[in-house]
Amino acid sequence: MTTTPAAPAAWQRRSDATTAPLDAETLERVDAWWRAANYLSVGQIYLHDNPLLREPLDRDHVKPRLLGHWGTTPGLNFLYAHMNRAIAERDLSAMYVTGPGHGGPGLVANTYLEGTYSETYPDITQDAEGLRRLFRQFSFPGGIPSHVAPETPGSIHEGGELGYALSHAYGAAFDNPDLLVLAVVGDGEAETGPLATSWHSNKFVNPAKDGVVLPVLHLNGYKIANPTVLARIPEEELADLMRGYGHKPHFFTGGFDGEDPAAVHRRFAELLDVVLDEIAEIKARAVDEPDMDRPAWPMIVFRSPKGWTGPKEIDGKRTEDSWRSHQVPLASARDTDEHLADLEAWLRSYRAEELFDDEGRLDPAVASLAPAGHLRMSANPHTNGGLVLRDLRLPDWRDFGVEVDVPGAPMTEATRVLGKFLTEVVRLNPDNFRIFGPDETASNRLQDVYDVTDKQWNAGYLPTDADDHLARAGRVMEVLSEHQCQGWLEGYLLTGRHGMMSSYEAFIHIVDSMFNQHAKWLKVTNHIPWRRPIASLNYLLSSHVWRQDHNGFSHQDPGFIDHVVNKKADIIRVYLPPDTNTLLSTYAHVLGSKQYVNVVVAGKQPAPNFLGVDDADRHCARGLGIWEWAGTEVEGTPPDVVLGCAGDVPTLETLAAADILRRNIPDLKVRVVNVVDLMRLQDEKEHPHGLSDRAFDTIFTTDRPIVFAYHGYPWLIHRLTYRRTGHKNLHVRGFKEEGTTTTPFDMVMLNDLDRYHLVMDVIDRVPGLAARHGLLRQRMIDARHEARAYTREHGEDIPAVADWVWPDVGDTGTERGGPTASSATGGDNE
Amino acid sequence: MTTTPAAPAAWQRRSDATTAPLDAETLERVDAWWRAANYLSVGQIYLHDNPLLREPLDRDHVKPRLLGHWGTTPGLNFLYAHMNRAIAERDLSAMYVTGPGHGGPGLVANTYLEGTYSETYPDITQDAEGLRRLFRQFSFPGGIPSHVAPETPGSIHEGGELGYALSHAYGAAFDNPDLLVLAVVGDGEAETGPLATSWHSNKFVNPAKDGVVLPVLHLNGYKIANPTVLARIPEEELADLMRGYGHKPHFFTGGFDGEDPAAVHRRFAELLDVVLDEIAEIKARAVDEPDMDRPAWPMIVFRSPKGWTGPKEIDGKRTEDSWRSHQVPLASARDTDEHLADLEAWLRSYRAEELFDDEGRLDPAVASLAPAGHLRMSANPHTNGGLVLRDLRLPDWRDFGVEVDVPGAPMTEATRVLGKFLTEVVRLNPDNFRIFGPDETASNRLQDVYDVTDKQWNAGYLPTDADDHLARAGRVMEVLSEHQCQGWLEGYLLTGRHGMMSSYEAFIHIVDSMFNQHAKWLKVTNHIPWRRPIASLNYLLSSHVWRQDHNGFSHQDPGFIDHVVNKKADIIRVYLPPDTNTLLSTYAHVLGSKQYVNVVVAGKQPAPNFLGVDDADRHCARGLGIWEWAGTEVEGTPPDVVLGCAGDVPTLETLAAADILRRNIPDLKVRVVNVVDLMRLQDEKEHPHGLSDRAFDTIFTTDRPIVFAYHGYPWLIHRLTYRRTGHKNLHVRGFKEEGTTTTPFDMVMLNDLDRYHLVMDVIDRVPGLAARHGLLRQRMIDARHEARAYTREHGEDIPAVADWVWPDVGDTGTERGGPTASSATGGDNE
Repeated sequence: MTTTPAAPAAWQRRSDATTAPLDAETLERVDAWWRAANYLSVGQIYLHDNPLLREPLDRDHVKPRLLGHWGTTPGLNFLYAHMNRAIAERDLSAMYVTGPGHGGPGLVANTYLEGTYSETYPDITQDAEGLRRLFRQFSFPGGIPSHVAPETPGSIHEGGELGYALSHAYGAAFDNPDLLVLAVVGDGEAETGPLATSWHSNKFVNPAKDGVVLPVLHLNGYKIANPTVLARIPEEELADLMRGYGHKPHFFTGGFDGEDPAAVHRRFAELLDVVLDEIAEIKARAVDEPDMDRPAWPMIVFRSPKGWTGPKEIDGKRTEDSWRSHQVPLASARDTDEHLADLEAWLRSYRAEELFDDEGRLDPAVASLAPAGHLRMSANPHTNGGLVLRDLRLPDWRDFGVEVDVPGAPMTEATRVLGKFLTEVVRLNPDNFRIFGPDETASNRLQDVYDVTDKQWNAGYLPTDADDHLARAGRVMEVLSEHQCQGWLEGYLLTGRHGMMSSYEAFIHIVDSMFNQHAKWLKVTNHIPWRRPIASLNYLLSSHVWRQDHNGFSHQDPGFIDHVVNKKADIIRVYLPPDTNTLLSTYAHVLGSKQYVNVVVAGKQPAPNFLGVDDADRHCARGLGIWEWAGTEVEGTPPDVVLGCAGDVPTLETLAAADILRRNIPDLKVRVVNVVDLMRLQDEKEHPHGLSDRAFDTIFTTDRPIVFAYHGYPWLIHRLTYRRTGHKNLHVRGFKEEGTTTTPFDMVMLNDLDRYHLVMDVIDRVPGLAARHGLLRQRMIDARHEARAYTREHGEDIPAVADWVWPDVGDTGTERGGPTASSATGGDNE
Repeated sequence: MTTTPAAPAAWQRRSDATTAPLDAETLERVDAWWRAANYLSVGQIYLHDNPLLREPLDRDHVKPRLLGHWGTTPGLNFLYAHMNRAIAERDLSAMYVTGPGHGGPGLVANTYLEGTYSETYPDITQDAEGLRRLFRQFSFPGGIPSHVAPETPGSIHEGGELGYALSHAYGAAFDNPDLLVLAVVGDGEAETGPLATSWHSNKFVNPAKDGVVLPVLHLNGYKIANPTVLARIPEEELADLMRGYGHKPHFFTGGFDGEDPAAVHRRFAELLDVVLDEIAEIKARAVDEPDMDRPAWPMIVFRSPKGWTGPKEIDGKRTEDSWRSHQVPLASARDTDEHLADLEAWLRSYRAEELFDDEGRLDPAVASLAPAGHLRMSANPHTNGGLVLRDLRLPDWRDFGVEVDVPGAPMTEATRVLGKFLTEVVRLNPDNFRIFGPDETASNRLQDVYDVTDKQWNAGYLPTDADDHLARAGRVMEVLSEHQCQGWLEGYLLTGRHGMMSSYEAFIHIVDSMFNQHAKWLKVTNHIPWRRPIASLNYLLSSHVWRQDHNGFSHQDPGFIDHVVNKKADIIRVYLPPDTNTLLSTYAHVLGSKQYVNVVVAGKQPAPNFLGVDDADRHCARGLGIWEWAGTEVEGTPPDVVLGCAGDVPTLETLAAADILRRNIPDLKVRVVNVVDLMRLQDEKEHPHGLSDRAFDTIFTTDRPIVFAYHGYPWLIHRLTYRRTGHKNLHVRGFKEEGTTTTPFDMVMLNDLDRYHLVMDVIDRVPGLAARHGLLRQRMIDARHEARAYTREHGEDIPAVADWVWPDVGDTGTERGGPTASSATGGDNE
């Protein structure tokens, strides 16, 4: 497989294409292809042997466990066959997104007919033995999955979990102006929320600069055990719905009441030409008029019987055109002679003997329906994104760093500075990097990117200054749907581009299951050599759990990290940069990486900086490290206590606690350890970033108390470290689901993550301190009470906290007011 | 507050209602109410003191931290005022679902004007001091949240996370035939996936037996920083969309271009009467014709300026009717004299002096707009579901139990038997129990419920036997959207009914964030005395990670349990019943419980039974226990090893391992511990169900190896037990994200959870065994190889595994073929 991209789409039918509307021979080829694809699909589901039915079907030829989904498959095959005709006549660069990914056998069958499957998997040859293997491997131990999985050439979309076909299709189309993405949407999938909103993607596509998505709503009529909603509303209502979604719908019904297949093919081919001509016209118009208003893109409502061409009835019960076709209609084929005979008759109805020669090779006349080379949908390089991936051009993040003369100054909004860096990323990569977000790009303070780009918007405009930074084309994609943003981004990445998504931390859970599916895709592709690595999926989670002053409890949940770390260690990375330069360093790193999901959590509120550019660089390279300047260790002596921290707010509290300790117990040897790369905590056997036990022990000690302040749910730290020797000494504070308040430090106190608790933890855990420092402990309790009482009276944090800064390191001898006069957690509104 | 329900909705306007269309005096009252609500809303956001503006506004009267969301609030207030007029005239039983829940100050303001707020919170009196407290508490430490939170009377919906307004509204309407649910959908929320599909809820509502949802799509025009999609498509396109969703849309635009408020009120009041008359007509028709076809229910598209009546411009930038009104438009009111003056002018524009008397009491003429007693939307008992909750009538689950003469027999499909029990639950509770599921009720084998009920379906019917068990009214609600099912169920529970949701285990992650929000709601209401307990939200997760033969990797993820246990211990429960009777016992228990989220994971494939009814009863009451019949302990002697298990497949493998051990190392003292109630593993200080350390140590020992086979990700067991003394001896096997295969035991082997690994674990961990039983260990490796090779050759599990049954307990002396001839994991397709 080479990296030459498919030819640009011509859109218009070639002048030398077969005579209009369609000659009988071409239609016959389309029908033969369809029969061949259906035959291979049924063969995959049922046959263990006798692939060409050269012998009468015997029950031993039937697989012992019949698995897979027949119902959606013949419709998918029908569309594939027709697309092949149209692609060849127009030299289209096209790909096929299979919403009903359960129809795996169909897509595998088509890629086999196109030859791509054998090119990709040379043991699946174009002969009888190859067919036997093709059939046998399907849904078989050691074989291939039953869905349109990563193993299937031409797929960027498994469709295992339903809802994302259109989002993926649009993600693929962005910045691929010559690409046509056929997106088949099952009427089951159409009931999901994410799919229901993804129709509106057409308001975000640019007719000149992006490719074209052609949605086909496949009204198969039934789901697993029910009719579908959209198949059971009046056609005029469905037409209204599609028009309401901004489309021009074309309705097609075929395959019912014994309609002659030739007639069905002719009618559909004509319709497809009409639709593709409409698309060609829009594309031509967009060349002349790049800022044209949003057109009503055509789409097709394709009504065909579920399990089309399968058994009409089984045991007297309607099977074709019913939910009984959903999986394996003749599951008892091995058990009864009658069903075995039914299966044989079904298989023979496709007349394989006309389609394959004696060696089992596809009739060249049928094979000629396929487009050539990369124009085959299964071989379009866009579907194997790594093939067309260009490395992201990254500026040096150091150029955007903040100067830190003394730890604790200046105050900056970390994500805002990141926005400046991203501005340059956008500038350097004008056609293969996009930023996605659910109406939160500015809220998460990345708005400086609007200096060089806009939000792409093809809904209506109003002549008002409220429409700022909206444009017909732009690098920022905003819609109030995390599903939509995630789906677009996935499609964009899977077709070989780069991107990121920013979200409020709590609401990224909305896409938990989408993350799962993408992570699974990455995991599997890591073991498929022909799948080239793609750019990582990068999250920026801001407006995090500790700063939801405007919103409160419903907006607080740091559990996405927990969710992510359940997935395979070789594809997930979690970063909690404590300040601006570490965020810059982290983000520059993740943007350049491949095949990962990177989760980066960072605050957007003004917060102190601790590490200069060089220190941040080193610290992030290590992933964690001892902050000597913050501790009070004595060279050559072990510390008395380790203060660990991960996350910006916990780091601040830890430093404030360290400050209190050094002022009040100057002889206590405190070590401060900050963790940026969370997976460093895990065992090196469990995660590639994991520290060796030896390194861990060196940093955290094996026998000293560790008081760890963590951004999220505290047990994650236990989970990551439970095998470490020092784990028995580990005490973790984090988010405890106590969240309704509105000042920063009050929120921290509500969850007992505050500096006063951390100091008390040290006093309680370091041997001997409790006896000697009972007074300090009491002062901590008092300071905490005072701070809480202040917020309840004044509605803002006590100045001793709000104005606290890390003292000059050279200044430790001076008592500056004691605990109640030393503290802070930023400020400002969301 | 009493439990008397609100009067049934009359639907028709009372004959003594004010003269049609509307007299000027009523309109003036509506306007006064609106002004009062707006004034109180602005007051809550900005004012710390001087609530009635008796003094000139000083910066000290303004809160130091300005938090909240103004933009959506005036529109919400407008609708509330108009609903009050209509409710009073029709004696409607109505409730208000606030999609834009960020508009918390508005809903609090209205409930205060209705008097409900003061009845609920007596310290918030109906006078100047009450107003001062009302203002001060809003978004203030120790006060109330800024959203329409559980603290807000009349709310069942916080709207913190957007997308569920319509689902909640329909859930509330089911089985409440006399209830009108006004559901305000923000145009931001309308972009989310769950909301986009929830419009189709109208195909699932029964006009005679259910209540009415009146959706109001509030075209506020802007989100946080962008225009909204639906506000920027042509009105005809939006009309198409709403018709396509099955509604009859009514468009209203008001408040632009300086329109006289009186005119706006008159026009909207007329429209609301038209809409309510249409509803009354449909309801009347439904009485005569209970099986009527689905009507086109009316809905309102309500276009008004964002931040309506607020500052037109601030610093020369358009504010009203722009996203700049989203939160706090004059955030700098304390900082500049000009903005302080602007704020004062804005507040004074509502003419509070006309609305409140000298004591700060609302003018009785204005107050009279509110309906009486329970007809006030904020006092409708349906909005405090526990008030109207009737206990579920539960049959004795023992009557449905399977007889278990010897452990290991008979084979049953656990969920199928549960279906029989649920059939009786449905029969006994014909109007307050529903089963929700994403087209998976039959797939999860609960189909016996169709003996007594049907799937409620008000889309179209076809005269085919494929339309079985569909009816205009029924207890089962199926649509292919986990979001929709969850949202409906939440709405149903929050209004005082009972229900459950069945789902494939992997795809329940789709509603992770919805679970979060419901769990947070429950957590908060546990601390609000006037919120009465509601029925638990019960999940049945089947088609679980270990049995996805048809589907594979994309359908495998047991992490919902991990997600759930991050929430507060007092509201979450997780159960993993190992067989049929334990599932029945568990489900009977959870259906009768209140204020929890119960997660029950159970297989649907044929599987052996181990516990008879009485044993299951005792075992489930304990939550975990030693299965003496499965072990080889000697009375009075500690075991050599503990085999722990949780989940049906892990339990089977553990028993098979125990079988191998007793045959081959008969002197080894094995203890088998099965865990049904997962939270028993946790410390009693962490979870109410947690075992004491003493009890845990007694069961699991403190010093013997524990080999634990777990259904999900193994680290959860570590997380739950890391504080236990015996944790250092604990070895857990579980799901490792290795999932593409198609036979049950092959799947188990792929994840190293198989019996052979468990036996090897025992040999490796019990001192002395490795030296003596190297041969057995090697036989395990060989048996595993043989089993894998068999699946790859035959496509099904090796008979030694597939046919394995637990030997009669009295039969342990007989060698029955050794390890390779002993095993199983069920069978059958999905």
